[in-house]
Amino acid sequence: MAPLTLHEDPRSGNCYKIKLTAALLGLPLEVRGYDITKGETRTPEFLAKVNANGRIPVLQIGKGEGALFLPESNAACWYLAHGSALIPADRFAQADMLRWMFFEQYNHEPNIATLRFWVSIVGETNLSDDQRRALPAKRAGGDAALALMDDHLAHRAFFCGDAVTLADIALFAYTHVADEGGFTLGDYPHVTAWIARVHALPGFVPMQ
Amino acid sequence: MAPLTLHEDPRSGNCYKIKLTAALLGLPLEVRGYDITKGETRTPEFLAKVNANGRIPVLQIGKGEGALFLPESNAACWYLAHGSALIPADRFAQADMLRWMFFEQYNHEPNIATLRFWVSIVGETNLSDDQRRALPAKRAGGDAALALMDDHLAHRAFFCGDAVTLADIALFAYTHVADEGGFTLGDYPHVTAWIARVHALPGFVPMQ
Repeated sequence: MAPLTLHEDPRSGNCYKIKLTAALLGLPLEVRGYDITKGETRTPEFLAKVNANGRIPVLQIGKGEGALFLPESNAACWYLAHGSALIPADRFAQADMLRWMFFEQYNHEPNIATLRFWVSIVGETNLSDDQRRALPAKRAGGDAALALMDDHLAHRAFFCGDAVTLADIALFAYTHVADEGGFTLGDYPHVTAWIARVHALPGFVPMQ
Repeated sequence: MAPLTLHEDPRSGNCYKIKLTAALLGLPLEVRGYDITKGETRTPEFLAKVNANGRIPVLQIGKGEGALFLPESNAACWYLAHGSALIPADRFAQADMLRWMFFEQYNHEPNIATLRFWVSIVGETNLSDDQRRALPAKRAGGDAALALMDDHLAHRAFFCGDAVTLADIALFAYTHVADEGGFTLGDYPHVTAWIARVHALPGFVPMQ
């Protein structure tokens, strides 16, 4: 495989997903760091070359002129895991795994990751009025996502059954640090047990 | 293939994605309608049997006891298109297609679809104060998504190159009716030309 470089902010759970996927697969990954709170992913050079959407993570495949750039954390995980056991081969199971990855980006990340960013990185005293007003709805949305996950995990070791898939990696990234956004993981015992199972996977690496 | 049933609200672009995918592939699809503005996807029966997340669309595969239920529009499209030309086989192309589908759910749908729902279905006079305050940010986010799409389409017929993929279907659904949310599609000429190309696809069906 061509050399892989992750354009990342190490505090980002979306970036961690890609590092965890690479680690579980034993793939080497260089990293290049940016500070999103200093606008380092909105520079003209970044927008022109790495991602016109001004966001990290971006997975770079190859170096120099012919390098390919892949934004969106879950798409980058898909690229890395292509053909591996982290993506089930069965038609329904594959679609069901993607179902949880889309759920993560639509119902989970905008609530749980955003509250963590606001509370632990921006700081509550620095929030705008609009952000402060949005807190209760994001808290309720995040708790609803965690409750749905908890119910689902009551009868399964991992999101798609007995074996870990990209759905677990995508959901683990911000779930296991949800307390940094003020969520109480102890309220969700099946989620807590699943977090321990992910920690125990061979090749597991922690978030920085 | 087992019989397919789409649990839908016909006004939803997320539901239309699945109908368009099925039509382009020539797959028969039964529909069962719900009115989301009347809470019909939050009944105990719907939550227990169809989707614990209380949302449509849900693709049902099979009937009776052994039926499988698949929420999340883009995951349902993936199931239908599995093994077809709507999903490129190349490793990078496949991940790049998913990149646009995750972009759609994260950056596009929450702005462009939500504004259409608020303006054309709920009605501006019925919005809550929180919704009214969120309008400018959603307008800016939607225009940023359309501008990014327009730049990307300046050099391509479809999102992943010369041929239509699920990325086009996912992004077409709410883009082609973005004017119903107050966006001006005429400001995005490459998007407008791409909309015409999608309309011209063999098997195309319009949104209701």
